[in-house]
Amino acid sequence: MGYLKFKVTAKEKKCRARTGILRLRHGTIKTPELMPVATKATVKALSTEDLNELNAQLLICNTYHLMLKPGAETVEKLGGLNKFMNWKKPLATDSGGFQAFSLGLGMEHGTGKMAKYFPGKSSQNPDTKRRIQKSTASISDKGIEFRSVYDNSRQFLTPEKSIRIQEQLGADLILVLDECTSPLSDKAYTKNSLERTHRWAKECLEIHNTDQALAGIIQGGQWKDLREKSAKYIASLPFDSIAIGGSLGKTKADMHKILDWVMPHLPENKPRHLLGIGVVEDIFEAVERGVDLFDCVGPTRMARAGYVYTTPKEGNVKNKFKYKITSSKYKIDSSPIDKNCKCKVCKNHSRAYINHLFNSNELLAYNLASYHNVHFFLNLMKDIRKAISEGKFLKLKKEWGIK
Amino acid sequence: MGYLKFKVTAKEKKCRARTGILRLRHGTIKTPELMPVATKATVKALSTEDLNELNAQLLICNTYHLMLKPGAETVEKLGGLNKFMNWKKPLATDSGGFQAFSLGLGMEHGTGKMAKYFPGKSSQNPDTKRRIQKSTASISDKGIEFRSVYDNSRQFLTPEKSIRIQEQLGADLILVLDECTSPLSDKAYTKNSLERTHRWAKECLEIHNTDQALAGIIQGGQWKDLREKSAKYIASLPFDSIAIGGSLGKTKADMHKILDWVMPHLPENKPRHLLGIGVVEDIFEAVERGVDLFDCVGPTRMARAGYVYTTPKEGNVKNKFKYKITSSKYKIDSSPIDKNCKCKVCKNHSRAYINHLFNSNELLAYNLASYHNVHFFLNLMKDIRKAISEGKFLKLKKEWGIK
Repeated sequence: MGYLKFKVTAKEKKCRARTGILRLRHGTIKTPELMPVATKATVKALSTEDLNELNAQLLICNTYHLMLKPGAETVEKLGGLNKFMNWKKPLATDSGGFQAFSLGLGMEHGTGKMAKYFPGKSSQNPDTKRRIQKSTASISDKGIEFRSVYDNSRQFLTPEKSIRIQEQLGADLILVLDECTSPLSDKAYTKNSLERTHRWAKECLEIHNTDQALAGIIQGGQWKDLREKSAKYIASLPFDSIAIGGSLGKTKADMHKILDWVMPHLPENKPRHLLGIGVVEDIFEAVERGVDLFDCVGPTRMARAGYVYTTPKEGNVKNKFKYKITSSKYKIDSSPIDKNCKCKVCKNHSRAYINHLFNSNELLAYNLASYHNVHFFLNLMKDIRKAISEGKFLKLKKEWGIK
Repeated sequence: MGYLKFKVTAKEKKCRARTGILRLRHGTIKTPELMPVATKATVKALSTEDLNELNAQLLICNTYHLMLKPGAETVEKLGGLNKFMNWKKPLATDSGGFQAFSLGLGMEHGTGKMAKYFPGKSSQNPDTKRRIQKSTASISDKGIEFRSVYDNSRQFLTPEKSIRIQEQLGADLILVLDECTSPLSDKAYTKNSLERTHRWAKECLEIHNTDQALAGIIQGGQWKDLREKSAKYIASLPFDSIAIGGSLGKTKADMHKILDWVMPHLPENKPRHLLGIGVVEDIFEAVERGVDLFDCVGPTRMARAGYVYTTPKEGNVKNKFKYKITSSKYKIDSSPIDKNCKCKVCKNHSRAYINHLFNSNELLAYNLASYHNVHFFLNLMKDIRKAISEGKFLKLKKEWGIK
């Protein structure tokens, strides 16, 4: 058992929404919370100072990228991830399992995020793009074989190796290696995959021997029996925390169903992390169903693509609470990104200036938009926590126009 | 006459080095000082918060770029440059004259900075590169004709238009339109050009009617008689400030000579701005000869190319006080960029981390390296001011290994 303490501090009566206090080695997190993603040991375009200002409580880094560059041994020699990236608060790492999906089946099925588009700087390097698209991952009972996006070298990740690497990286909360199946995988494939994922979960648990908290991952695709089986099995093991992995079906309704199937089988006293979800509507729906933790690259990825988030009424379900700041209609708009927002960017800068920075390819554009977007999500989570503590979560959800 | 007050506060005995207090509409600047360049209304990769933390006293923006994007009228409608970019301290703009050189003769002669290399983001866009290389500028007695780097549209800048645009942009200190000749221009060309530059200087002075301070520019290439003539002429006109423009000859010795020719003819009570110079050695040599103000894109441009500055002994004249942080030798180096540096980046981050950020194309790399480099130069200027006030400038110069 790793170091993790979790206490539910308030619960809604008409739904499963709850607030909690999560203690990890590097500090305390109020839940529900969204963790900004620091893929390569940096939340893209933001400094750790920015993240401290934003009161980010917990970040999550990417094992697949860091094992390749700068390498887990390098990070270990430099004192671990917290020291390496100068982040003094809690830190999580994923297991590399998601990349088995996004570089493997996700790519083949055209459903992986990476297969669709590459916003931000790296996308402008045609070499990187070509290499990534040629890369694949394949999975066997032993582990996941990757081609490195950096040098196309062959990489093999086993459950044990994923844990050892995450131990070297040294985050407070780590994840077991799993397979994230595709929404296009059939039931037979998903069932087989789930059995393997369960074997790997147990193996990771047995192998792991540091005080890092370890989370098991529930899979099972879009099938009720598989999801229930997985929820029961993962809940039965002595994990510190429980994560719910995708694919979460093809539609939003699928995601709701999956959460409804899974939640009754999870213990009250362990935090629940819905992996990779970060659309406003989904966050409300998932919190309503009892989710405590989220992680998503959306806020910063969208920022780099020129999308900024905004609260109701300007933001709504239809526009996904965001708009494109690069549009010419903001060229002489002296108002802030979001009139209701109290972040530094909205206090200091106009839409016109940010529009100009984007249209001039100025690096500051990415910083300002990322800062605002992360603030938007962390502030949303804060509002959600406050609402739950006052028994007003469903009222808040309604105010945001989410049915 | 615009709003500018300048007072010399200390003078060295064995050279022309001096400290001063320069008052502009938005505040007070201690000289000698280097102004970070905010080409397109942003110092690349830095926020105005960063620049406030760094105690930057004065920034300079680029008229050529801003007249094209977002346009001087847009900036004016949005309340002027200070408000547009949320910079509350003094601001300068250049006249567009330097671009006549860098996009015209500089390009043809292969001596312009822009003809040589394009570090940073924009360089990675092959379209931008192609367009810039095809663009040219040509000069006549009426003004400078440019091709826009953005859309290849024809642009015409006259002395009057440059002043009007700079009035719309609204900086505290503005510059007359001049022609910056190439080091390869012959004496006949330079003499003719100088006469035109002088006519334009007078025209700008007569046209200008706001409280923005106006600086005249001394040209004359590498010829003693032309430089002396220009110094005397510009000094004879009621400019608020005096700038010395390049080309400053072909060698460092040429630059020293030019400053030695010019300085005796300049009034004590006006600030002297050496345009576009920002190499450590040159700063010492120019301060020694009586220069008060510098501006240079070097600190941030070098940062984006992966070069970081460092103080003696690690930094020296031979390595130009910088080294390449992207080198593999820094991969597991847990020391800061510069052991003697007290900036936020050196306090918080290792060479290894910054090396990783650069090698991973992470945007934070540009911010951290730019922050350190600007700190390096502003701190150097602070040390220079302190040394002069204590009569120890030549001692400091020697400590930096500059003969």
